[in-house]
Parts: sequence; C-alpha cells; structure tokens
Amino acid sequence: MNHSAMNQATDRFLALVGDVPASTDPATIRRKSRDFYWYSPILREQLDGLQADCVVTPRTEHDLLAIARAARQSGIFLTARGGGTGNYGQAVPLRGGAIVDMTGLDGLVWLRGDVARVRAGTNMLALDRALRAQGRELRIFPSTKRTATIGGFVCGGSGGIGSVTWGGLRAPGNLLATRVVTMEDEPRAVELRGPDTRIVNHAYGTTGFVTELELPVEPAVDWCDMAVAFPDLPQAARFAHLLATQTGLQKKLVSVMDCRLLPYFAPLRNRVPAGRALVILMMAPAAIEPTRALIAREHGELCYSCNTAEAEDDPGHVPLYELTWNHTTLQVLKTDRSYTYLQTGFPPADALARVAALAAQFPDELLTHLEFLPMEGGMSCAGLPVIRFTDSARLDKIMAAHDAAGISVANPHVYTIEDGGAHRGLSPDLAADKRRFDPAGLLNPGKMRSFEALAGALDGAPNGAGRAAES
Amino acid sequence: MNHSAMNQATDRFLALVGDVPASTDPATIRRKSRDFYWYSPILREQLDGLQADCVVTPRTEHDLLAIARAARQSGIFLTARGGGTGNYGQAVPLRGGAIVDMTGLDGLVWLRGDVARVRAGTNMLALDRALRAQGRELRIFPSTKRTATIGGFVCGGSGGIGSVTWGGLRAPGNLLATRVVTMEDEPRAVELRGPDTRIVNHAYGTTGFVTELELPVEPAVDWCDMAVAFPDLPQAARFAHLLATQTGLQKKLVSVMDCRLLPYFAPLRNRVPAGRALVILMMAPAAIEPTRALIAREHGELCYSCNTAEAEDDPGHVPLYELTWNHTTLQVLKTDRSYTYLQTGFPPADALARVAALAAQFPDELLTHLEFLPMEGGMSCAGLPVIRFTDSARLDKIMAAHDAAGISVANPHVYTIEDGGAHRGLSPDLAADKRRFDPAGLLNPGKMRSFEALAGALDGAPNGAGRAAES
Repeated sequence: MNHSAMNQATDRFLALVGDVPASTDPATIRRKSRDFYWYSPILREQLDGLQADCVVTPRTEHDLLAIARAARQSGIFLTARGGGTGNYGQAVPLRGGAIVDMTGLDGLVWLRGDVARVRAGTNMLALDRALRAQGRELRIFPSTKRTATIGGFVCGGSGGIGSVTWGGLRAPGNLLATRVVTMEDEPRAVELRGPDTRIVNHAYGTTGFVTELELPVEPAVDWCDMAVAFPDLPQAARFAHLLATQTGLQKKLVSVMDCRLLPYFAPLRNRVPAGRALVILMMAPAAIEPTRALIAREHGELCYSCNTAEAEDDPGHVPLYELTWNHTTLQVLKTDRSYTYLQTGFPPADALARVAALAAQFPDELLTHLEFLPMEGGMSCAGLPVIRFTDSARLDKIMAAHDAAGISVANPHVYTIEDGGAHRGLSPDLAADKRRFDPAGLLNPGKMRSFEALAGALDGAPNGAGRAAES
Repeated sequence: MNHSAMNQATDRFLALVGDVPASTDPATIRRKSRDFYWYSPILREQLDGLQADCVVTPRTEHDLLAIARAARQSGIFLTARGGGTGNYGQAVPLRGGAIVDMTGLDGLVWLRGDVARVRAGTNMLALDRALRAQGRELRIFPSTKRTATIGGFVCGGSGGIGSVTWGGLRAPGNLLATRVVTMEDEPRAVELRGPDTRIVNHAYGTTGFVTELELPVEPAVDWCDMAVAFPDLPQAARFAHLLATQTGLQKKLVSVMDCRLLPYFAPLRNRVPAGRALVILMMAPAAIEPTRALIAREHGELCYSCNTAEAEDDPGHVPLYELTWNHTTLQVLKTDRSYTYLQTGFPPADALARVAALAAQFPDELLTHLEFLPMEGGMSCAGLPVIRFTDSARLDKIMAAHDAAGISVANPHVYTIEDGGAHRGLSPDLAADKRRFDPAGLLNPGKMRSFEALAGALDGAPNGAGRAAES
C-alpha cells in the first residue's frame, strides 16, 4: 500500500485496538524500531531508518488478542519487541506497521519446584532477582540480562551464560512450554509444549506472539567471577577447554579472549598484564579451591576474582559476564566503531587447532573470542571473533575461510532466520508453521525467507509490497 | 610372627588402646573381616577364612590416634573398615591384626553453602537424609548407599549414582579435602586438600585413616525413577547415550541392562515385557516431560516410574538405583551364584559399536550392563557385565577380548590397588606416599603392590611373613 493508505490502515488499527496503550510519538517510534543490528555495518546500511508507524503496548493477553484482531482487520504488520537487544534486526520492522512492545506482559506466573512459568516481557535481571528471592536462578541468560526480556531471548537468541553447562536454548529440556497468541482468522492463545516450542524458538516472532514461557530453573548459586591470564592464546584456550570438561567443577561461564581485547575491558585492563590472553570464568563456591589448584597447575595467573552478584548489584562494578558473549563486541564498539564480529561454531574434534589456524590466517583483523559449550555430544566452543571491518567482500572472504576450515558460520550480517544460521536453507516446516499461525503473513514480515518463498515470493505475498531492503 | 606371638601382640595392642571399644568375639571378628569380595569366585577362593584377631571401634579421632600408637608399639596390622561393601576384598585383613571399624566416627561436622564436612564413618543413607533435611544431597553415591560409609566409598570406590553428571570420585572438585590419621612414628592427624587427596582416594586405607571428608553437596532434587523398555540392546544403548548427552535434561543415573537381567529385578519383572532391553533412569522433575517426549520419539516404552525417595523410604519398594552399578550383579547373585562380573571402560569413540561387538562375541556368557558417565572429555560408559563363570582361564580370555577391542578392564578379581585398574602398574608415587604416612607398613598389608616392591618384596617388609594368598 502507498503512504496514504498505510496511514489510513494505521488509523483504523489504532481505532480498533481501543484502550490498549498506543503511541505515534516519532521519538518513541524511532527508539522502539531499533535493536542492536548496528553491530553489523552491513545491516546498518540496510536497516537504518526503517521504522514502524506506531507502537502498542499490551498490558494483558486480552490486549494482545485485541491487537491481533485489529491487525487482521486493518491489514497492518506487527513486529514484536522485547528489550531490543537482538543483533540481527529481529525487532526492526521492515515494512512499517505497529511495534508490539511486549514489556507490559511481565512477571512470574508461578514457581513450582524446578519449573517456573513467566510472562514473556519480563526483564531478565528482574526475573533472575525474583527467582533468587525464592532460591532459584535461570539456567541460561544473555550478557544483556539487564535489558533483555525472557521472551526476546528465546525468540531471538540461542544461548549465553550458563550454556557451558546446559547447552543452548534449543536443547531439549531448556524450554518446556510456551503460550502463543496466533494471528489466525480467529486469533487465540495456544499452548505449545516440548518439541512443539520449536515453532517459536528463535523464530523472531514471525510465527506468533509468545506471552508465557515455562522454563526449568536451577537452585541459586553464589557465583564467583574469575579472570585468569595466560602467556598466549593457545595456552588460554587449552586451559579453558580443560576447565570446561571438568565434570566435577560447577560452572556457568568459560570464555577466552585475545590479548588485544583487554584494553576494552574496563574492570580488567588495570589488573591483567598487557599482552596476556584471558580466560573468564564463573564458578560455584565449591569449585573455587579446585579451580585455583588447576590454574596453578596449568601455569595461569588469577588476576581478578569477585562475587558475581555483588558486581551486578554495585553500580561501580561490572560483572565479568558483561565482557562475554555479545557484550565482548559491544565493549569494543563503545570506543571503536571500525570493528564488527562473526558467530562461528567449532566442531569438538580438533577445536583448538582450528581456533589457532584461523587466528593465524587473519592475524591483524580477527581478535579471537571463544565461548565454550557442549556440541554434538562433546565439549567445544562457539567463536564470536571481533573483526576489523574493511568491506563486505572481505567479510565474505573471512567467512569462506571458516567454512573451508570446517567451522560453521552463523552469519550475523543478515536479518532473515534462514540466512542467519541455525535454520540454514529454506525450511518447509517453519514456513508451514507460519502459514498455520499467521496465514496473512502479518508478523515481522521479510524475516522468514521460507515463508516468502512458500507464499510465491514477495509480489504474491499478502500486503507484500514492502519498502524494505530485502532486494 | 607365629600364632602365639601374634596372640601376644594382639593382647599387648588391646592393653595399649585402653578404653577404646574392642572385641575378640569370634562371630564379630568373622563378620567384620568380610566384605563383598565373594562376588568373585577367584577372590572367594583366595580370601575365604582370612580374618582379624580383634575389632576396635574408635569413637573419636583421639581413640584412633591411640589405636595408631598402640599398633606401632605392638607391631600389629590395622585394616580400616566402613560398611564392608567393597568388592575387591579391600576390607579383608590378609595378615590378621585388628579391624578398625570406622562407623563410630560418624555425623555431619558442618554444612556451609555447597560444601559439607563429614566424618568418614557416616552411613551414606543417613548422611543423605541429614543433608536433605537442609536442602542438600550428595553428588555421587554407591548403589550400596543403605550400608556403605562415605569414607569407605571414597577409599574403596570410584563412582556411582550421580557420576553420569559429575564424573568419578577422582575428578577434580568431587572431593575437596580429607583429614587423615597417619601411622608415622608419632601418629597425627593431617589435612590433605585438593590434589593431595589422591594419597587416600581409592587407596583402600593403605596410606592412612581418613577421619573426615569435605565434599561439594548439591541442592536436593526430587528425583524420579524411570524404566524404559526397548526391543533390543543396541536400541536401548543408543537411547541411553542420546539421553546421557542431553545437557538440558538434569539426570542422576543412566543405566542399560541386557534383557536376561530382567528376571532378577523384582520391581520390574512384572512390569516390563520379557525379552526387552532396559534403560534405567533417575531424572529431575523438570526433565520428566521432555524425557517422556524423547522416549516416545525414540520408540521406547516407559514401563515404570516412581519417586526415588518414596521408593527408598518404603520398605515394600526398591529404588531403581538398587538394580544398578554393583547392585546389578548382586541381584543376580541373590538367586544364582554361578555368575560373576567384570568392570570395563569404553572409550567415547565408537562406544556403542564396541558394546555390540563384545556382546556378540560372548552371546551366552556375557550379559551387558552399562553405566553411562563422562570419560576423556566426552560421554561414554562403564561396563559391569554379568558373566556366567566357568573358570579363571575363561575369565582371562573374556578380559583379553576386551583388551583386544580397546576396552579397558578394571579387574575385580584381584585385591591389590594396582592390579584392580585405575592405578594399573606399580606406582612409585603411591608407594612413596605410603612410606611417608605408614613407614612400618602396618595399614591393610598386601593391598598395595607398589609398596611391597619398594620395601623389597614381602620377605623384607616389616612383619611381612603373612599368611595371605598373595603368591
């Protein structure tokens, strides 16, 4: 539709949603239409300036159903948004419409033993604190815990702090159920349990609105941050792998950092001698003494340790997890926008040799950053290397070198689910799920390539004449 | 020494220990001189009838120091005993002397967060209940939890229920410290922390008396027993391996049983169709629903499930862990003494193919029994196959076949530490540790071959003219 028709549709939508809080304030719209896509200079070029026509903020599932019905009647697009901490433009509306700000749907529904039911828009720090007050904690959280929502983490993320023990968000058992508001002819709330949660897990909100999630929660642990220095990267990586495979040491985080990342790490740069590769750990109290023994045996130097919760609660401190996962790149970008990053997965066999080979192949542009986690039944690591950006062609070359070395790449410079990695290639199943739950294709349009293909490419898609950059 | 000299030495020892409870009652001596060595027809032949001259039962560390001094002065041998559930004759005195019954040194010393300090003679069921009353539980316990002591488990065992998650007792972090009464010229209590605990870990009490242990303890979990049937052993083993590698499913036990073991399993034989291979599980509450989904997907049949603690507390029930680890063989031996067993370790690579090949090689005599646990950084399994016993030569042949297939054997038909497996071959370190802590060689003589070698073989060893069968 053209601009004027779009305005009319938006007006009709806003009239239909009744008393659901809504905003057409340009600053609000601009702010709520962005996420962390600007990590990628390529996405920056493609997504800068794209924005919604309005923002709605449901307070209840009833509000959300009203929004869904209003969108079906008015034909406008809806893009769900949590804390806006995604890196692939998940929450950027490619074709206008309404941003659905999910943060009003928040709070713990119930906690029963080792299972919690939570509303999707709950801030993860608030959630972890609410759980901790009852002696529990989240298995896995992102480095963006302070701003992310649990629904956004599950719909847009894949793993994080805790994955070294529990694996990724898609590993069976890490997400027990979701409640989803559909965009069917008669929008309704459905319960997806167990394997059925794959319909919404990491689907960028293209298949429905997740309103509640049921998750396993662990007994709260009083974690300890540790930073360990090694003379070089191979020694750091070897120690990290050794530690990650120690089944007797309870851990939440095992990260490895190239020495050139140290200057960007405020809490550590004055404590770690320059030129040392770093291993960052979160260990349980009972593991501290044996970990110190292992560090000494492997000739590492424990340069820093601090109670994680204290660092989190103290405005003058930074918990070390805020130097890891997607925060590593963020710490660099805070002072130098000439960098970007990649997301890679090392197969367990020869992981360390492959890490070394890649680092050697791009000595000046690739700053190694590893996150250890179990893969294919063994212990391995994901890479989130910080890359000095030249241009798109050079980035493609670096990705091709990973491919050639047997290291998988989840490309963070694209905004479709399929091109980003886990669901690589077109997925008839995923497209069929979307067709079932969102037959009119109104949810976060342009993000699921499989659906666009199924719907007969963009021209044939309902309301498909977008202004997005998906050329 | 001859019989009369031995009697004199015993009398002197008993006089020196003063008011420490002691017994020379023949029935008590006979009972306290035995363990579960009779699993092995070979050890039965070697150890039957061997017994101590008296039993002493220290109530305090002070008593134990008095016993140590008295033994040094009188020259009699001392053999520590916990619950007597060892399988290799660990607690059988090869050369008489005194049994030191450690069960008087019991109770929780303290519990601080995720670490507990406990006395060595504490019964493991009582310990687990005391911990559970404070919201904690043991990481690893043996199938003999009802009768074993924690000190005996650490000094004579290597792993058990919980090892699928935490690894073995010797994995760093699973034993934080031990307090040890030495047999030095001036017996004293010393604290061994971290890696130094290797001096007593699985050393059969040859290096000192463990009086206290510091262990990590986990938040208590309300475990669920599950028995899952599969049409054949390869399918059962494949499912067990799949489940064991599910990082998102919290588990305490993953065992696999040949269908021919089912008739010996009272709680299951009327619930599982005959001819089915079994997988026995203990799963956390949050893992039950996803485990059921996985069972359905893999075409297993959930034949039985029960709350573990309820089964443990109800005299009419049997918790499924009492069908696993060393109890599997015990369930068979209860009705048929013509069987024995082996202890094997499968390397993670091709573990399942090796399991199948071995079973096929001895179709009539080897009843497969697997316990999954992490090994060499990957997930694999230990085998405790039940073996129809012919003779010693045939058993050697079966062990040689394992060796040839790259499967390690920890021979449970020998009573020395070195021949039994983990410390295979002579260990100068271990012998040096013993020489330091027990220079007169009075502790559990004949069980550490490295020490006998160091001391110049039996003839040269102090008081070495034993009547044991270590020819």
